Amino acid sequence: MKLPASLHRLIEELAKLPTIGRKSAKRLAFHLATAPKADPNALAQALLAAAMELRPCTQCGGIASGELCPLCNDKSRLEGSILVVEEARNVFTVEESGIYKGQYHVLGGAISPMKGIGPSQLNLKSLEARIDQGGIEELILATNPTLEGEATAHYLTDLFQSKVARITRIARGMPTGGDLEYADPGTLTRAIEGRTRFNSA
Amino acid sequence: MKLPASLHRLIEELAKLPTIGRKSAKRLAFHLATAPKADPNALAQALLAAAMELRPCTQCGGIASGELCPLCNDKSRLEGSILVVEEARNVFTVEESGIYKGQYHVLGGAISPMKGIGPSQLNLKSLEARIDQGGIEELILATNPTLEGEATAHYLTDLFQSKVARITRIARGMPTGGDLEYADPGTLTRAIEGRTRFNSA
Repeated sequence: MKLPASLHRLIEELAKLPTIGRKSAKRLAFHLATAPKADPNALAQALLAAAMELRPCTQCGGIASGELCPLCNDKSRLEGSILVVEEARNVFTVEESGIYKGQYHVLGGAISPMKGIGPSQLNLKSLEARIDQGGIEELILATNPTLEGEATAHYLTDLFQSKVARITRIARGMPTGGDLEYADPGTLTRAIEGRTRFNSA
Repeated sequence: MKLPASLHRLIEELAKLPTIGRKSAKRLAFHLATAPKADPNALAQALLAAAMELRPCTQCGGIASGELCPLCNDKSRLEGSILVVEEARNVFTVEESGIYKGQYHVLGGAISPMKGIGPSQLNLKSLEARIDQGGIEELILATNPTLEGEATAHYLTDLFQSKVARITRIARGMPTGGDLEYADPGTLTRAIEGRTRFNSA
């Protein structure tokens, strides 16, 4: 039988989300369409507001609601170091651990020949500009401990080791193949405290 | 650190969905806010359209985009039987099997003292009206094989047994493709109690 068109479309849109399969998308759509407590309008408004308000921070590439993100706007953050992550959500994960007080930079991914992602697709130009401005004493590479994250860390080391005295990599306190998103603050704290020198100098 | 307000609100709305925990809600919100391929506006529009268009079918309680749902509108459906389910999504699950060609009725839940749901909260008045109109020879109770579903099936049987000649309950047993090893004792008990003759004699 044919589903009503708007229900079908809602299922299609929900199924595009990561980790939501077709069966889950159906379940969520039926919930939103029929459950008395469900509020599809509230979720729609939240989506529209987010789409409208949120944009990449022009400095670090994180999530901002204006020109700069709250962290780049925060004058109390230490200025001598930049911690580099793959995704914007990783910034919030690191912040939750409370161990780091410096600057961030969001690459927007990692180098992956498999997925056809090369350095040109990453948010590198603004990182280079920030480093060229001077004053960065340490670049902390907090890309994921995966093949792609490692490759990206090596690439960044090659690119910046003539410009930054100290390039470090977060410690392997996390299992290889893991994702920063699912690390608990304690593990992250260990990983950041145990960072090791990554360039040969 | 504080998340941008619209991102925070999006996480809150997503976390209200069933099976979506706080961590998943965060992940989905960040995806929607930052992934280049994500389209929060499309999902928002789909939600608004669904909220606008979809309503309960005035006859069966299923999902309709007009007065009646596509199934109640379908004159080719057999008229002598009503299959009763708890939720609107269950109608589509039964339809996918292709085994049933009659009418449906959606209760909108099951009797559950634990959740404070009694018969008065279920879509029973219109079921009674449909039965009182006459012509229903069989009422098939396809509520879930749970405590609540069983209680509801018993309640419906008491309520309608003077009016409907044949009230049936869907069979319980091993699911197709299941493994005895992982079947719970209740399922196995029902599967053995409900065994059918297998040889042709």
